[in-house]
Amino acid sequence: MRVVAVVSGGLDSAVLLYDLLARGARVKALSVDYGQRHRRELKAAAALCRLRDVRHELVDLRGLKRLLSSSLTTPGARVPEGHYAEANMRSTVVPNRNMILLATAAAWAISSRCDAVAYAAHSGDHAIYPDCREKFVRALDKAIGLADWHKVRLLRPFVRMRKADIVRRGAALGVPFAKTWSCYKGGARHCGKCGTCVERREAFRLAKVPDPTDYSS
Amino acid sequence: MRVVAVVSGGLDSAVLLYDLLARGARVKALSVDYGQRHRRELKAAAALCRLRDVRHELVDLRGLKRLLSSSLTTPGARVPEGHYAEANMRSTVVPNRNMILLATAAAWAISSRCDAVAYAAHSGDHAIYPDCREKFVRALDKAIGLADWHKVRLLRPFVRMRKADIVRRGAALGVPFAKTWSCYKGGARHCGKCGTCVERREAFRLAKVPDPTDYSS
Repeated sequence: MRVVAVVSGGLDSAVLLYDLLARGARVKALSVDYGQRHRRELKAAAALCRLRDVRHELVDLRGLKRLLSSSLTTPGARVPEGHYAEANMRSTVVPNRNMILLATAAAWAISSRCDAVAYAAHSGDHAIYPDCREKFVRALDKAIGLADWHKVRLLRPFVRMRKADIVRRGAALGVPFAKTWSCYKGGARHCGKCGTCVERREAFRLAKVPDPTDYSS
Repeated sequence: MRVVAVVSGGLDSAVLLYDLLARGARVKALSVDYGQRHRRELKAAAALCRLRDVRHELVDLRGLKRLLSSSLTTPGARVPEGHYAEANMRSTVVPNRNMILLATAAAWAISSRCDAVAYAAHSGDHAIYPDCREKFVRALDKAIGLADWHKVRLLRPFVRMRKADIVRRGAALGVPFAKTWSCYKGGARHCGKCGTCVERREAFRLAKVPDPTDYSS
């Protein structure tokens, strides 16, 4: 099976990459620069792909930025701290980001006759990210399958897993977690306080897997 | 109703714009530069929006070009001549273009709290463009409605109309057809031979509406 994997450089998509390779898929990786402040994740994605000898394409869609309201793409906007599931995290939602990423990945998959697109949505995302829910993914899978005469499927192997389950699978697959990047603040080290840092820490703790992340607090 | 209309600068989306305004919608228009060779259409879109005092955003997504195989985005590739419905027209399909356009329009609609996204797919497109079919649009409408807590609808008022019907409606609405651009070859005048020129000509003829287009042959 030939698959285009959406690889952000974060923990979840790194495990997705390793998981697909372990299953024998022929994988190409796509990252999208949509003007996110945590651009370090894009370097992490490139490094992970180099390590696994996977072709990596970084697509520049920064033109999208002016249409979108999000603390993740607005310079100077405050990135909220605390737990992911809280209402104040909503400012980190980039409107319709996942559909844009997946539509782009599907375009590449159709163009190069791949069988599927894969992404790492998981159940913990649902509270604030509507476009990680299984019912959204199911509807989009259907649309992607109808978008071209060459049918592409949308794989979402983690959609019913919690992030701790993903950490556990990643540990079993030997994912170099220290090379992945989660922090939304995009500093030199993981801040340890923003929603994604809090969730990352918690996932390692719940999974009982040593957390190699260098948090600044 | 507040609507983001996908306006390419072609005939169909010009009629869409006029149609939405005639129905009293508050319209913003989106054009996407995806590296199409017929870039003149983007100028046509801007001119039409100026004429109707409609806000127009042109988003630069040329970063997509390297992922896509299409005669419309590949410099030097031959743009086929003849009727649209023919198999050789398939090289003009830009893989998954409509989903990318509509996902981008939906992102803007969500971000600015609009009620809907509109695009001008019509029944004549179906023969070669799978992503103009009603069943594709229906699946995508569902996905867009689930992509955010703010629900956006996907309007496709022409999806069961033929292009001649659209010409007739445009004539009734006073659309300045001469200001719209269809030709895929992107020369100074409409070539009159490529699929979209042939279809444009035919639509005026079938609609019994005078065709103001300046064809070079």
